[in-house]
Amino acid sequence: MIGQKHKVALIGLAAAIALGAGVAGAAVQAADDGKNVIAYRHNVMKGLASHITQIAMVAKGEVSFASHVAANARAMADAAKIIPELFPKGTVEGDAGVEGVENEAKAEIWKEWDKFTAAATTLEVQATKLAEVAGGGDVAAIGAQLGEVGKACGGCHEPFRKKKPE
Amino acid sequence: MIGQKHKVALIGLAAAIALGAGVAGAAVQAADDGKNVIAYRHNVMKGLASHITQIAMVAKGEVSFASHVAANARAMADAAKIIPELFPKGTVEGDAGVEGVENEAKAEIWKEWDKFTAAATTLEVQATKLAEVAGGGDVAAIGAQLGEVGKACGGCHEPFRKKKPE
Repeated sequence: MIGQKHKVALIGLAAAIALGAGVAGAAVQAADDGKNVIAYRHNVMKGLASHITQIAMVAKGEVSFASHVAANARAMADAAKIIPELFPKGTVEGDAGVEGVENEAKAEIWKEWDKFTAAATTLEVQATKLAEVAGGGDVAAIGAQLGEVGKACGGCHEPFRKKKPE
Repeated sequence: MIGQKHKVALIGLAAAIALGAGVAGAAVQAADDGKNVIAYRHNVMKGLASHITQIAMVAKGEVSFASHVAANARAMADAAKIIPELFPKGTVEGDAGVEGVENEAKAEIWKEWDKFTAAATTLEVQATKLAEVAGGGDVAAIGAQLGEVGKACGGCHEPFRKKKPE
């Protein structure tokens, strides 16, 4: 768990330091490579997982950092807002998409695009509401609204994400 | 990588849904259990890793999501702000701290507390600056300021985090 975290952090850090040392960033691309988009959106989802886990630990009373919840919820809302951009057509694994990339995006995303984007909007709305609720510092209220956020996550994962083989 | 992400996401989701179903959140604690604080701060660091990796992918031109950088940088600044709270005394592994928890926090954190908190503040300042720079959408400028953010990460990791055994 931690080893993984460090690996990811080191990739980011190495890139950051290389850029700081004067390596020029490449130009903005018109259409990004599907593999890169998939890697990027996996990182967005990791961020969401990090933020919801922090909030859940507060809601369960494992830590007393209720004052952190609003910022975590705002970060979730910011991520929810960009979800549609993270799923350009063709970034699905298998016969219709990008081969050789671990990816659980179902083709249904693009078949039911309006339903998909509506699900992302629901997450944005519920996370924004959680940020508002969290301002009051009431852990029970945070827990109740976190439940709505969790349902919003499931509202996208259930129809649009492949089940993981266990 | 993805398996890990899902595991974390599922923990958060399960907690969120359980709370939404009416399981009451526990009361806020005066002093949190060290193991919980360590788990929580690992999640904060995972969030930071997620955000810096997204920004680095933009800076390297791997994806063209320059418009996402400001929100990622703000999330990093928000996380930097809470770092001192995440390291209450005694949450170090080994003879001085919490046994049986994977943890790379060095005892130097508490011996050189002012230096440690100053390093966290530097990250907050540099990430805030990155959020401002990113508003302009200039990928090269983002890359240059990301370098400063990367140095700020290292400014804490190098003196205060144990080296990982590889």
